[in-house]
Amino acid sequence: MKCRKCGQKAAVNMRHHKLALCKDHYLEWLPEQTERFIGKYRMFGREDKILVAVSGGKDSLSLWDLLIRLGYEADGLYIGLGIDGGTGYSGTSHDFALQFANQHHLTLHVVDVQMEVGQPIPVLAEISQRGHGKPCAVCGLTKRHVMNRIARDMGYSVLATGHNLDDEAAVLFGNTLNWSADFLLRQGPVLPEAAGLARKVKPLCRFYEREMAAYALLRGIEYIYEECPHAEGSTSIYYKGVLNRMENDHPGTKLNFYLRFLEARRQGLFAEKQATTTSLHPCLECGQPTTAPGRCSFCRMIERAVPASVSDFSSAT
Amino acid sequence: MKCRKCGQKAAVNMRHHKLALCKDHYLEWLPEQTERFIGKYRMFGREDKILVAVSGGKDSLSLWDLLIRLGYEADGLYIGLGIDGGTGYSGTSHDFALQFANQHHLTLHVVDVQMEVGQPIPVLAEISQRGHGKPCAVCGLTKRHVMNRIARDMGYSVLATGHNLDDEAAVLFGNTLNWSADFLLRQGPVLPEAAGLARKVKPLCRFYEREMAAYALLRGIEYIYEECPHAEGSTSIYYKGVLNRMENDHPGTKLNFYLRFLEARRQGLFAEKQATTTSLHPCLECGQPTTAPGRCSFCRMIERAVPASVSDFSSAT
Repeated sequence: MKCRKCGQKAAVNMRHHKLALCKDHYLEWLPEQTERFIGKYRMFGREDKILVAVSGGKDSLSLWDLLIRLGYEADGLYIGLGIDGGTGYSGTSHDFALQFANQHHLTLHVVDVQMEVGQPIPVLAEISQRGHGKPCAVCGLTKRHVMNRIARDMGYSVLATGHNLDDEAAVLFGNTLNWSADFLLRQGPVLPEAAGLARKVKPLCRFYEREMAAYALLRGIEYIYEECPHAEGSTSIYYKGVLNRMENDHPGTKLNFYLRFLEARRQGLFAEKQATTTSLHPCLECGQPTTAPGRCSFCRMIERAVPASVSDFSSAT
Repeated sequence: MKCRKCGQKAAVNMRHHKLALCKDHYLEWLPEQTERFIGKYRMFGREDKILVAVSGGKDSLSLWDLLIRLGYEADGLYIGLGIDGGTGYSGTSHDFALQFANQHHLTLHVVDVQMEVGQPIPVLAEISQRGHGKPCAVCGLTKRHVMNRIARDMGYSVLATGHNLDDEAAVLFGNTLNWSADFLLRQGPVLPEAAGLARKVKPLCRFYEREMAAYALLRGIEYIYEECPHAEGSTSIYYKGVLNRMENDHPGTKLNFYLRFLEARRQGLFAEKQATTTSLHPCLECGQPTTAPGRCSFCRMIERAVPASVSDFSSAT
């Protein structure tokens, strides 16, 4: 297999694009595509102050790398979740995030959940009894809360996450199997700013996971290989397995599924009225916008789990 | 496993309904459910004259059986497609349809495609070069044309087909993976009458294929076991395989997927305007409604394949 651009030996072959590229041209192509997607979906401009949610994995570190290379102003946010799983998961991922920031002289904000509220995610999940025995619901809730807070308190207009196509297709697949109207109307490369929440963007949403792994590898980015130990057995991993088998039989399945969804929605497949049925107001405790009456889900969860810590955590920066 | 109703040994266990029934109670339950679906989706009433599309398979013969037992006026339509496939597929399926009609003293209309247009489906497909080497597209087109014609010419207000949940879920799955707006807006238990086309209904759309197989078996209905020899390798069979694996891992997946789709659409998920963008007018050749300019797809296909036969076929009853 030869590089389409120079005829040298290809390093990456993308069957769904019918495109093979050598290392150098792949490392040119992927940032070009990223820039194209940022523009196409109007994610942000050079004037924006971007906060990248960095987990220490290949996607988020590659995203940070790409944004800096493309000339954007992007700082990182690492959230210490206190997940060990026998391999020191959180510690290792923190190390990779810090190493990347130091190597590139970048600003990395660090928020440690246990230091702030007194308990790590697995314990919070256990005490609050949310999520059917898995900490993923509490983890997602906490990460969203912290990301929103840091973006607001430190003046970031845009919050960027490293979700790749495999992530997005799996979420869309689940939302479609259940026909979850609210999620189908919101899922996409951009979630607009609203009620004081920073705009959320996913610049990698059109890259397959293996394309991101190839980028990190060829660029020499060091990252944590392990998945979160709690991810095993999750529905999103199950859906990824189903989609992977279909992708294997019919290359391009995931990309078509995701892009045709975006296009059908753009062309007005869904009724507009449903998008505006929820109204936001500030949480009485932390001030973040919420649709729940009174306090937001996060503050209610924390109060059940660690009654004394709510106000400290909500106001800390 | 015991029958929920009488405690005798169960003959059918439906994990997705958490319901097991003995033979007698299953043969009571399935018609009751059918009647419930006919009412719920307002398919038809006792005053309607129903034409059942009968293939000789378990679904369509069971449907005919059910409608008669429930007291509806239902005649059959068998379309001879001229498919041999080494097993005499069409001949055998015709025999089963005829046997059922005779046993129950029912009226069966028979239309033989080769006798009417001079060529069987596989040859029509080959000559007309539609469908990428498979006759399924030409077969579907022809069957729809014949069913519509017979319903119109013989005064049937309703056309009933034996599509079961596995069929409907597979079609929905394909339409969803491709986000085919037109199909997503139309697919359902009922396609209303329009421009002289009879209403189309699918009374079995909420029964799993294995529930229909169990009904035919327990009721003693004899039917053709073989699938159409051309079905092998089709996308609908591929999608059925994907859904079967998910159903196996999570019983109820197909039923939820289909019912939640119907419910989300009922609640207004999709924009209405898209439903009315296509306009129908009579085909200049056969008079059936079509969105194509001039003649309908069927008449154009026939003209290419068998130039002399168009008008004969279009006006024959």
